[in-house]
Amino acid sequence: MTNEANTQAPQHEGPTPERIFQALTAYQATAALKAAIELDIFTAIAEGATTAAEIAERCGAAERGARILCDYLTVGQFLTKQGGRYGLTPDTELFLTRRSPAYLGGMVEFLCGPHLVGAFQANFTESVRKGGTAMPEQGSMTPEHPMWEDFARSMAAMMHMPAEAIAGIVGAEGMETCKVLDIAAGHGVFGVALARHNPRAEVYAVDWQNVLPFARRTAEAAGVAERFHEIPGSAFDVEFGDGYDLALLTNFFHHFDKPTCVALMRKVHSALKPGGRAVTLEFVPDEDRVTPPAEAAFALIMLGTTPSGDAYTFGEFDAMFREAGFARSEIIAVPPQHVIVSYK
Amino acid sequence: MTNEANTQAPQHEGPTPERIFQALTAYQATAALKAAIELDIFTAIAEGATTAAEIAERCGAAERGARILCDYLTVGQFLTKQGGRYGLTPDTELFLTRRSPAYLGGMVEFLCGPHLVGAFQANFTESVRKGGTAMPEQGSMTPEHPMWEDFARSMAAMMHMPAEAIAGIVGAEGMETCKVLDIAAGHGVFGVALARHNPRAEVYAVDWQNVLPFARRTAEAAGVAERFHEIPGSAFDVEFGDGYDLALLTNFFHHFDKPTCVALMRKVHSALKPGGRAVTLEFVPDEDRVTPPAEAAFALIMLGTTPSGDAYTFGEFDAMFREAGFARSEIIAVPPQHVIVSYK
Repeated sequence: MTNEANTQAPQHEGPTPERIFQALTAYQATAALKAAIELDIFTAIAEGATTAAEIAERCGAAERGARILCDYLTVGQFLTKQGGRYGLTPDTELFLTRRSPAYLGGMVEFLCGPHLVGAFQANFTESVRKGGTAMPEQGSMTPEHPMWEDFARSMAAMMHMPAEAIAGIVGAEGMETCKVLDIAAGHGVFGVALARHNPRAEVYAVDWQNVLPFARRTAEAAGVAERFHEIPGSAFDVEFGDGYDLALLTNFFHHFDKPTCVALMRKVHSALKPGGRAVTLEFVPDEDRVTPPAEAAFALIMLGTTPSGDAYTFGEFDAMFREAGFARSEIIAVPPQHVIVSYK
Repeated sequence: MTNEANTQAPQHEGPTPERIFQALTAYQATAALKAAIELDIFTAIAEGATTAAEIAERCGAAERGARILCDYLTVGQFLTKQGGRYGLTPDTELFLTRRSPAYLGGMVEFLCGPHLVGAFQANFTESVRKGGTAMPEQGSMTPEHPMWEDFARSMAAMMHMPAEAIAGIVGAEGMETCKVLDIAAGHGVFGVALARHNPRAEVYAVDWQNVLPFARRTAEAAGVAERFHEIPGSAFDVEFGDGYDLALLTNFFHHFDKPTCVALMRKVHSALKPGGRAVTLEFVPDEDRVTPPAEAAFALIMLGTTPSGDAYTFGEFDAMFREAGFARSEIIAVPPQHVIVSYK
């Protein structure tokens, strides 16, 4: 018995259908990682269950199920395998074991939830035909859409790093006054980070009434609830008030077309005090719109879930923000996104 | 306005959540490629529609839809983009334009069809718990399951290359007698390839009654219908007859547990004439079960769709086939799969 043919990687010359096959079955990769997170397999391995049998027992799975799933995750480089024992990679150890402070497993609820997945099933080809979401009404832009509750509940952990980055970029700790308008606050992580870094900061959070409780909980957990204020409703309709030092627009503009973005930014401009700054966190592709990969690919989610959202280039943002009255904008890379600071 | 930060790829050191995020949204890659195939975007580009506006017009899509989809496909390396014009890659030109003889776009019907996708949605975590499909009844192993009609209809094109490889491996053209038992014939491509290569070949195709018409159509299209014979029913129940020179077992064993494979191979053994050969086409991972990637990953589909199927190693096949009475087996790489020839 020889298995030599098996031990050498196949050498392909010329075209092969492998990448096409891989993309057409990519939903299986989602299902596999989602199952591993739901069964808490990474935590089990971190706690010493490293064979398929041990993992199965710890996670309440069948041994065959654990073995096939863990082999698949090893192929995908989410696990290692040596002598029948599975191990974590640096990525999965940090982000997918429950005891890690950087645990991100909760993302499955939003990223693999019914609203987002639904937009990419039967309906997606129709979205391309139509040039906008084929979801009912305005897709995720429908007022008080429950998808934003999933978002606020499950994406907070992913945002701690960029929230800290923004606090550093704006120099929050050195600001003498720090009145913050947090537009589409969601989980509240961005405004609350500023409140943590500056004891004088007062945060005014705008979001749907059904979403604001999530932001309030974040403020409570950080001990800044008394400096956290709620403005329930659509950012396009509510009164912001004025005299703001900072306005946060984190992952908001990509849901809308350009005239809508300009109109909102005009409203933000008048709410800011002289010298105030608008801080935008966005997926900002290069002018070619196909690099960098993660930022360029993001526009597809807007095609599937919104009537007319997009991933705008910095050239487009700069033009929109000037039209809205801002003097100038600066862009800073906060991988995998960018921060744009715009000066009134 | 500067966009320098955007033009350099982010340099990551240490863990990042990017690959986790990518896997949890991988279903979007499936939806995008499926939409492009359904709208026939690759053919449109091949025929000279290369801007988003031209592609949109040709494919009956919105320009925004075509632009965002084509940018996404460029990120995924299924298209190129230069100066606002999209182009094909060698893979997409050969496999996804309709005029190509190697067109494989029909695969979406099976790979992205309701049965296979359904097995990886709400149910998949339950499959891991259970150690087998959470689909109703026996999953894809339920008699006359309509999934096998989708399979026969849409996967034939993908199988022409391995079918030709098998005809070469067994030396079909030089065989003096060539009575072929084609088990789970499906689209019929494997048996029909032998009939094309050997004018004396007589092919006996076993499959469900609802699937055999697809194999017959393949035989008719190849002009070998008068040498194509049907044995409708389960391979485990029907009478094969005897005196076969070759038995084809293409992508069949992976649906079953080992005792079932051995029992079937015993039945095949007695149907073969002395010196006859069983020819198995399979996903055959190395003994570590995590390489090569495509073959190791395949077991996941069996976990999701069958009660107890698997991707077996050559060591396991060799042992099963010996137990069933075969003298020896040889393995030959036919990327992305392997062929095993077993001698009576």
